[in-house]
Amino acid sequence: MPYLKNKIINDPIYGFIHIPFNIILSILDHPYFQRLRRISQLGLSSLVYPGANHNRFHHAIGSMHLMNKSIEVLRSKGHEISVQEHKAACIAILLHDIGHGPFSHALENTIVDNLTHEEISIMFMQKLNEEFDNKLSLAIEIFQNKYHKTFLHQLISSQLDVDRLDYLNRDSFYSGVNEGIINSQRIISMFNVKDQDLVVDFKGIYSIEKFIIARKLMYWQVYLHKTVLSAEHTLMKILLRAKELCQSGEKIFTTPEFKIFLYEKNAINANFFKSRKLLNLFARLDDSDLITCIKNWAHDKDEILNYLSNCILNRKLLKIKSIKKHEIEPSLKIIREKIQTSLKVSHNKTSYLVFAISIKKETYSLIENEIKFLKTNQELINLSDVQGDFNMTSRNSEIIKHYICYPDGYLN
Amino acid sequence: MPYLKNKIINDPIYGFIHIPFNIILSILDHPYFQRLRRISQLGLSSLVYPGANHNRFHHAIGSMHLMNKSIEVLRSKGHEISVQEHKAACIAILLHDIGHGPFSHALENTIVDNLTHEEISIMFMQKLNEEFDNKLSLAIEIFQNKYHKTFLHQLISSQLDVDRLDYLNRDSFYSGVNEGIINSQRIISMFNVKDQDLVVDFKGIYSIEKFIIARKLMYWQVYLHKTVLSAEHTLMKILLRAKELCQSGEKIFTTPEFKIFLYEKNAINANFFKSRKLLNLFARLDDSDLITCIKNWAHDKDEILNYLSNCILNRKLLKIKSIKKHEIEPSLKIIREKIQTSLKVSHNKTSYLVFAISIKKETYSLIENEIKFLKTNQELINLSDVQGDFNMTSRNSEIIKHYICYPDGYLN
Amino acid sequence: MPYLKNKIINDPIYGFIHIPFNIILSILDHPYFQRLRRISQLGLSSLVYPGANHNRFHHAIGSMHLMNKSIEVLRSKGHEISVQEHKAACIAILLHDIGHGPFSHALENTIVDNLTHEEISIMFMQKLNEEFDNKLSLAIEIFQNKYHKTFLHQLISSQLDVDRLDYLNRDSFYSGVNEGIINSQRIISMFNVKDQDLVVDFKGIYSIEKFIIARKLMYWQVYLHKTVLSAEHTLMKILLRAKELCQSGEKIFTTPEFKIFLYEKNAINANFFKSRKLLNLFARLDDSDLITCIKNWAHDKDEILNYLSNCILNRKLLKIKSIKKHEIEPSLKIIREKIQTSLKVSHNKTSYLVFAISIKKETYSLIENEIKFLKTNQELINLSDVQGDFNMTSRNSEIIKHYICYPDGYLN
Amino acid sequence: MPYLKNKIINDPIYGFIHIPFNIILSILDHPYFQRLRRISQLGLSSLVYPGANHNRFHHAIGSMHLMNKSIEVLRSKGHEISVQEHKAACIAILLHDIGHGPFSHALENTIVDNLTHEEISIMFMQKLNEEFDNKLSLAIEIFQNKYHKTFLHQLISSQLDVDRLDYLNRDSFYSGVNEGIINSQRIISMFNVKDQDLVVDFKGIYSIEKFIIARKLMYWQVYLHKTVLSAEHTLMKILLRAKELCQSGEKIFTTPEFKIFLYEKNAINANFFKSRKLLNLFARLDDSDLITCIKNWAHDKDEILNYLSNCILNRKLLKIKSIKKHEIEPSLKIIREKIQTSLKVSHNKTSYLVFAISIKKETYSLIENEIKFLKTNQELINLSDVQGDFNMTSRNSEIIKHYICYPDGYLN
Repeated sequence: MPYLKNKIINDPIYGFIHIPFNIILSILDHPYFQRLRRISQLGLSSLVYPGANHNRFHHAIGSMHLMNKSIEVLRSKGHEISVQEHKAACIAILLHDIGHGPFSHALENTIVDNLTHEEISIMFMQKLNEEFDNKLSLAIEIFQNKYHKTFLHQLISSQLDVDRLDYLNRDSFYSGVNEGIINSQRIISMFNVKDQDLVVDFKGIYSIEKFIIARKLMYWQVYLHKTVLSAEHTLMKILLRAKELCQSGEKIFTTPEFKIFLYEKNAINANFFKSRKLLNLFARLDDSDLITCIKNWAHDKDEILNYLSNCILNRKLLKIKSIKKHEIEPSLKIIREKIQTSLKVSHNKTSYLVFAISIKKETYSLIENEIKFLKTNQELINLSDVQGDFNMTSRNSEIIKHYICYPDGYLN
Repeated sequence: MPYLKNKIINDPIYGFIHIPFNIILSILDHPYFQRLRRISQLGLSSLVYPGANHNRFHHAIGSMHLMNKSIEVLRSKGHEISVQEHKAACIAILLHDIGHGPFSHALENTIVDNLTHEEISIMFMQKLNEEFDNKLSLAIEIFQNKYHKTFLHQLISSQLDVDRLDYLNRDSFYSGVNEGIINSQRIISMFNVKDQDLVVDFKGIYSIEKFIIARKLMYWQVYLHKTVLSAEHTLMKILLRAKELCQSGEKIFTTPEFKIFLYEKNAINANFFKSRKLLNLFARLDDSDLITCIKNWAHDKDEILNYLSNCILNRKLLKIKSIKKHEIEPSLKIIREKIQTSLKVSHNKTSYLVFAISIKKETYSLIENEIKFLKTNQELINLSDVQGDFNMTSRNSEIIKHYICYPDGYLN
Repeated sequence: MPYLKNKIINDPIYGFIHIPFNIILSILDHPYFQRLRRISQLGLSSLVYPGANHNRFHHAIGSMHLMNKSIEVLRSKGHEISVQEHKAACIAILLHDIGHGPFSHALENTIVDNLTHEEISIMFMQKLNEEFDNKLSLAIEIFQNKYHKTFLHQLISSQLDVDRLDYLNRDSFYSGVNEGIINSQRIISMFNVKDQDLVVDFKGIYSIEKFIIARKLMYWQVYLHKTVLSAEHTLMKILLRAKELCQSGEKIFTTPEFKIFLYEKNAINANFFKSRKLLNLFARLDDSDLITCIKNWAHDKDEILNYLSNCILNRKLLKIKSIKKHEIEPSLKIIREKIQTSLKVSHNKTSYLVFAISIKKETYSLIENEIKFLKTNQELINLSDVQGDFNMTSRNSEIIKHYICYPDGYLN
Repeated sequence: MPYLKNKIINDPIYGFIHIPFNIILSILDHPYFQRLRRISQLGLSSLVYPGANHNRFHHAIGSMHLMNKSIEVLRSKGHEISVQEHKAACIAILLHDIGHGPFSHALENTIVDNLTHEEISIMFMQKLNEEFDNKLSLAIEIFQNKYHKTFLHQLISSQLDVDRLDYLNRDSFYSGVNEGIINSQRIISMFNVKDQDLVVDFKGIYSIEKFIIARKLMYWQVYLHKTVLSAEHTLMKILLRAKELCQSGEKIFTTPEFKIFLYEKNAINANFFKSRKLLNLFARLDDSDLITCIKNWAHDKDEILNYLSNCILNRKLLKIKSIKKHEIEPSLKIIREKIQTSLKVSHNKTSYLVFAISIKKETYSLIENEIKFLKTNQELINLSDVQGDFNMTSRNSEIIKHYICYPDGYLN
């Protein structure tokens, strides 16, 4: 395994990534982590951006690389960070996404109940901590924001964390939407710490503005691209329909790994995970389970499952149309009636084929902890208080969009 | 489907790719072509280069783009190319790889007999030709080199074709091995035609040398990287073992799509494909079938299938060691005996775990049609006749390497 | 001249630039245009960003390339543009900056009076029009916005013109400040025309926001970087001092080309240019005149000229400090007095060494013609009316900054 | 001076360059070093590649950066390098080109006699060593290859030094000839030391082959591009003619800095430099002197000086034609006679307008110290002994080309 022997991993974005600690190598080698090779980073975005086939494995390693660089910078500015803290921060960011299921988000709110990928990540970390003789304890503390050096947690999860710095560049690179490219090297070089908080040297203000705009752009142009929304919500409808069929006693195709998640009648939540030791089964799920299922469901006798699976498999996606909020219900009603008549499906099934999507996204949050700048006089100032072009204090920065999805031909 | 409506596809390598003809759009939309989204371009190379997750779908479109640019250049130099020929050449390159199976090459010589992916590509083209009212006839003629304008075939398949121009840059880009980057724009700008042959303007000599060295480098650093070789040959051993088990009446897991390929007792060759109308079944196979199988085989009771599947699934690859030819047999013997004893497997099974790989690759072939340069006096000269640094006339340019693969710990 | 023969020019940003018309080649070959090779694009920015040595010659050709692409896009959307209009628009953008003097802006308001580089550009165009048998008449009409197809002028000069699209990417590329990189290909692909106005397809909204932020960032990080400001204002002080000395009868070094500009007692304005046929003399001025003068002035007996010339020549720049408006006058007074005492220079000379700079820059102007978006229902909407993150309606987008410059050591 | 305060310099190729030692900052600040900002790296190549306006200043800093990285790598492989050695190696590479005159090579063999830029570099280093209290002594030792750790010298000057690694990428980047791009990060990561010699880990073989081919390509495509040859030899003819005129008592324009170099009757060699303390005068020469002279000489009454100066100034270059060796003399004779008649110039003047250029370049030298590879068994092998595609043992790798240059229209 050359990248292990040399402790170097090729990355088209950063050149070479050096692995700073042996325990990182051991974690990379673990089947839990290797599974991330088979979890696509951007779900179904590759249906719009065919280059976007990168996976969580590479993103996790890239984020770890930026964590490593961040700690170098903070140390060079005189902030003490012990080897143990350094190692723990690297482990924590490496594992921050390990709880993602197939296509990153497809199972959430369809198969799995009230259980975020972060919570599953923690379950994985705890399991690994047992296997690694408690060497991950500090990493877990940092991940859960229980450690007093708050900035270490903020590097993992905040409005300006290395997760975002990596995924913006990585998603831009692979999708070819180069507007998302940011200068992570420059931003990291302006990281600083004040009162245990991660802050940014003031002269970094324009780079941070650029970062925020780049992230917004990636949201609307890639992550929430309307064709991607149509595809991802269709995938959710497929899973809901499959589960409904299984629950009502129908037999449909499933891979062995995925069986319990479809047929189980109890809610698949945190308790269920624990009581049934589901983690190891979950650890075997990846994109290929869903693809294999969908390929078979595209021939299923259930017309809904069959129809929607073909949508995804052969990229015959549901049409998606931007719509005003008050028009949603009347529009759904009209199209569903048309569908009911022409396709001869029962009314309640039409909600699988004709549905609304509402998206709410703010560019920058004033409610979460703000990005703070450190002025040369050592005072702090919030991004929203910097006089400038952003109108962060109003509701302007929140965008709400509504769409309806429906089979082609049912709306003029 | 935004890229269809706008007839533009995002490509991180070329920026935007314009789709030049409506029939191209219809082919892109066909399930046969959409399947290529699920066939990785570089097989298991991503186990060494984690960025290399690109697929045949994107490569086919990229090659079509370069075909389009090549035809523009040739026309600008006064060579007449009709719209029909232009369209046919674009279709032919688009479909040149459509016959690839899971992980591009895994089934060849393991599951499928005496049947190259090119032959399967032709079957697909003929099937599509029926569906498209014979509009692909000229494309098939060009692909099979039966059309008098030989240069159109050479653009698809020769020692300097748009296939190679696309994959070198694409594989470099995604793997991060930037030594493979070539200037395809410059090379194409020097394409020319003489006596219906594709030739290169003489001043392109250095760019062609660079192209040949870049390709050589990509072979040894990526395509034939020894860890990749270990992984891909292990995958082949898995398939051979699985087929052996199925043939001998064992029941092992299989996806429905893959079943006939494992259990069929007849040779799966061209005749079988035709007699059994296998093409549509083959058209449902993709990487996810193999991954799903391997995930289940990693728990199979057959110790060989189980062992090797874990190798791939969790990247616990067989060790691979460069070796001299005459040492192969003695080394295999020693290690197989050790394995037999310590793992208590029968001798004939050890050949699945301990085996040799021999690779022969020449940088540039003197037997195939050579790359020809057009001098300003309109004479042609073969690359090997250009006085320069390459020693093409000797056997130097052919490299032969031998390796043995074996479970870790069985060789000091 | 290979790039002429092949009608191709290498550009690290766009790859190859094709020259679309023979008259463009003839203009490129003219000494007036060749002079632009010796006019740096970014004045003294290379003192901060050492890679930024690109010149007006390359920028002009790059802008012409983007004009060419823009016209292709507009035609593909059904807007008729004749070959004559196409050619004229390319000529106009090619010549838009031909009136720039040494270091692009150094002579404005120091040597030359009330005469912008645009006005000098027009003089050059008129002169070339005579030489080229009036073939530039339409180009001049478009440049001066007298042609009814307003969008052609707007492509040259507006808040979203190909000039800006080229310089943002070019300046980013050469300076290494990659935050300025924009996707000009994508922006141009969304250009459209409505009622003869250049507009943008609505879905381009995020790319345009990104473009505006990128431009703002380049202003503050490069063009108005405070060290650059210090250097460029020092250069202006040098020229003012040199002119003052010449006017008062002192003899200082000058290149022959520059002599009249220093010694002439009349205002060097448009009338003077015409009455004295100054254009051909101006056409011989370039960066090397100023560098040669400064190298000699660094040894001049006038202590001010000598001091400031050394500042620039050996990059011993005046300190520059951000300051509040009301503090400017008192600060200047204090430092000038200190200088007067310690350097024993007369009070009025201290204004050459100690001075204030005030910068006013708005990110996007509501007073100029706004950027307009074309919605799918064919309605237009101004950028400032799009609900979003920008607060264009307030004064927020205008930034005013004040600085003082002074010799090192005269302020604690 | 922001890059000094932050000890960071923006570089479009490497991102940020950190300055590792304070003495490096002091050297950067010295007028001798600042002069390199005004010496173009590639002479007149920008007449063919208009982006290639980079200078020796940036190249020197970039090379220093690669030296720094190389030393990091060697230390990480267990080779001891003291801080003093590290610092000295960085200083030596920083100053390796400080002796270059205007347009890098224009004065050599025209104005200056028997004095290479390396020798002038050493004079500068010795002068700086005095100013810096002998802190450069070790750097000079290393530069002159008098230090026992030979690899430090080899990093500065050998067939695989950081000078070449920097200039290949830098010249490719700025010219846009991207075939010259090499993976300097990968190559450096494979540097090693054996018996005090710089060697390369064996697995780097393909990267080194690629490096050699890239360098060859840059030579023929950029450095020795025939139009560049025509321009640079014309510049040399200009200087020879100017010197001839001055020596014969003619008065021609000169900048004060350049005067002695033109009018001095003694050979301007090492002795003359020392005896006349010429170094400080030389330290004031840069590209702007030659440009200013040429602009004035383009109006000189001497028809040769006038003609050739216009060639360069307005890029009306002499035609250049590839020719066989035995055809040189007859061709020169014919054209010179034609010129003599039609231009009415004396015969001996025609050699300024019509002349031959012969270029000899080998891709890789077997006479110089070879590039050595370190095999895993710790044995060394020379590049030319590695079995492969290169035919290094023959004369093939040496290319000789002949050209003649002449005014357009004098050869059919």
